[in-house]
Amino acid sequence: MNTVEIITIGDELLIGQVIDTNSPWMSHELNAIGFDVRYKTTVGDNESDILEAFEKALERAQVVLVTGGIGPTKDDITKKTLCKFFNTSLVFDEKTLETIATVIRGLGKDLNELTRSQAYVPRNCTVIQNRMGTAPITWFETNGKILVSMPGVPYEMKWAMQEEILPRLRAFFHPADTILFRTFWVKNYSESLLAIRLETFENELPPFIKLAYLPTSGLIRLRLSGTGTDSGTLSGQMEEQREKLLACLGDDIVSEIDENLENILDNRLREKKLTLALAESCTGGKLASLFTAIPGCSTYFKGGIVCYSNEIKQQVLGVESSYLSEYGSVSRQVVEAMVVGAYRIFNTDCIIAVSGIAGPDGGTPEKPVGTVWIAVSYKGKVQSQLYHFSQNRESNILRACNNGIRMLLEIINE
Amino acid sequence: MNTVEIITIGDELLIGQVIDTNSPWMSHELNAIGFDVRYKTTVGDNESDILEAFEKALERAQVVLVTGGIGPTKDDITKKTLCKFFNTSLVFDEKTLETIATVIRGLGKDLNELTRSQAYVPRNCTVIQNRMGTAPITWFETNGKILVSMPGVPYEMKWAMQEEILPRLRAFFHPADTILFRTFWVKNYSESLLAIRLETFENELPPFIKLAYLPTSGLIRLRLSGTGTDSGTLSGQMEEQREKLLACLGDDIVSEIDENLENILDNRLREKKLTLALAESCTGGKLASLFTAIPGCSTYFKGGIVCYSNEIKQQVLGVESSYLSEYGSVSRQVVEAMVVGAYRIFNTDCIIAVSGIAGPDGGTPEKPVGTVWIAVSYKGKVQSQLYHFSQNRESNILRACNNGIRMLLEIINE
Repeated sequence: MNTVEIITIGDELLIGQVIDTNSPWMSHELNAIGFDVRYKTTVGDNESDILEAFEKALERAQVVLVTGGIGPTKDDITKKTLCKFFNTSLVFDEKTLETIATVIRGLGKDLNELTRSQAYVPRNCTVIQNRMGTAPITWFETNGKILVSMPGVPYEMKWAMQEEILPRLRAFFHPADTILFRTFWVKNYSESLLAIRLETFENELPPFIKLAYLPTSGLIRLRLSGTGTDSGTLSGQMEEQREKLLACLGDDIVSEIDENLENILDNRLREKKLTLALAESCTGGKLASLFTAIPGCSTYFKGGIVCYSNEIKQQVLGVESSYLSEYGSVSRQVVEAMVVGAYRIFNTDCIIAVSGIAGPDGGTPEKPVGTVWIAVSYKGKVQSQLYHFSQNRESNILRACNNGIRMLLEIINE
Repeated sequence: MNTVEIITIGDELLIGQVIDTNSPWMSHELNAIGFDVRYKTTVGDNESDILEAFEKALERAQVVLVTGGIGPTKDDITKKTLCKFFNTSLVFDEKTLETIATVIRGLGKDLNELTRSQAYVPRNCTVIQNRMGTAPITWFETNGKILVSMPGVPYEMKWAMQEEILPRLRAFFHPADTILFRTFWVKNYSESLLAIRLETFENELPPFIKLAYLPTSGLIRLRLSGTGTDSGTLSGQMEEQREKLLACLGDDIVSEIDENLENILDNRLREKKLTLALAESCTGGKLASLFTAIPGCSTYFKGGIVCYSNEIKQQVLGVESSYLSEYGSVSRQVVEAMVVGAYRIFNTDCIIAVSGIAGPDGGTPEKPVGTVWIAVSYKGKVQSQLYHFSQNRESNILRACNNGIRMLLEIINE
């Protein structure tokens, strides 16, 4: 199979200022068209480190994808270093300048000396015009291998990959191998208990099908990946393993869609033309933000109440004060009253309500940190469940979000 | 300076299922005690790739920190590979078993064969007991260099670094060099215009002080980093450069605190004992989630309304329907009415309200995607501002959040 290495360049990645969300996205897209990402390297804006990374990567892989370090400021040296590596020099490219001018005009701004300098490109490369930003994308061919330098700005990189780089890589390599994936969202297991449950299944897998455990907060995502040359045959072999897995795990498999849970629910709500609202205490807006990150969610998502105090639970959601004093804000009674309150306000088909103790403070012996009540409703039917998550705030918030989404998916599918 | 390399291990990192938030955090902590992270490598659960990564990293750096691949399941092979690399074998360690049993009991669960197997550790290492999970941390010393293997689970890794690994690294190397940082949050500039503005300043910097541009959605974070052997002298030299920068950028510097904007505001609100509520349209709960990610935010954060439809803006926030029909939901009138509505509900000292077109759909010729109105209020004083961000949904949401926080910080500081 054709192998890819990703090199991300930038001091900001090494001093911990920036989280790299680019390379996971790139890997996913590359996998889908039959390229295997084997190695990822991050180096700073330092010539000798960049040169070494280029050299090693081109030794090991057929394709080297480089992001970052091509901005207009002094600290960005990738372009110069590419010239040194490929033993060439920079030339001014009129067509690139035109593209840059168009992009800048689109932002309602004027060219300045620094943005103009972006039109200098290495002599011996193919320039791919960047329609989303001012840094040109450069494509180098060397001994049947490819190195591409592209911007590190996420939406520029995504545009470049989808519109230009992935189609060109496909045309260049004609990947022969097929990779197929099957994904299974599993509830009710810890990673180790699931591994024990699946020991026989795993031992009996053919060598070209691998099983991976991808723990997500609150659930586990299992992934079967198969590699073969004939996609029909491989597809049959994958189906066989899938059926064994279904027989083994039964109802604990929540979904077989290879997307985030919020995207799975998003699709389901659109399909069934259902509306959604939220009442969030300990998830504090995180659940809403997962849906509102998805373009077009306003077709079903009406809104949410983030109630971070008991007064707001009473005043806005109409939770009775006797519930709060008698059962406490983290209780079945309160979370179900939050559902009722949210329904009164938003009048939606579906509601998710969450109340819990995210931590690190606020725990008691009866209700330690990690205690979370979640209630969901679908057309009047209400289900609620108590969880004991972890000591960790971030993890508790994410687990509550994922389990709320899972509960709603299940009640809709019932 | 002592250099560190980080190796992250796991197929899930290469197939794009997991975003690595560990290494940025590690870098930040290492920098703070005078270690320089030079290189980061990610490899899959593949013996030869892991061995190569260990070898190269130990050639280049004094310290190699390895995360991941030490879970109890079959796909995790880091521990075995460590044995091969250091030419040793696994031994059963009673003390480690005790720790594991304690951790498992704390979760209300029982030991099983897989979690018990975690008590096997490489013979020639120092075992660091992991109080947060079941995978032991292992510390290897080789030719005056250190390699540490630790879990990839973020809160286990953070605990291990803070409580055990960072103190031990400090004791082992006694880092002589001092690294000092100064951070500046800058508004009103694009990266290229800021670079032009700072050209002379940058050219006149002494060689041991570097300037980096860290664009954050909607603002730019500038960072001066200085390296020296005498912290007193270096501190004076940094102060000199800081003053030059302040003279250059004046009021466009919003803050000099090296934290995320939401953490800066969090501190300010606690300090001044102020309360906060939100009314979010296009940011869709993201703004709330930034605050509620911070432990203890309930001291000032009362809640928020996520209003993703005009009806909710009217019914819950009391925005007049004539405003919506006359000015449109993305307008000064509506966003200021959202402030009033949020104040009526939450009665807080401070409010941030946002209404905009995040995209990709919903734009018009008059109000294209990226048009966002933000209003903030502080004790009755209201300020609102119109923004034209980008074509990109994610970026528009983040820019709106950061600028809302910035506006509130500024109105409080006035």
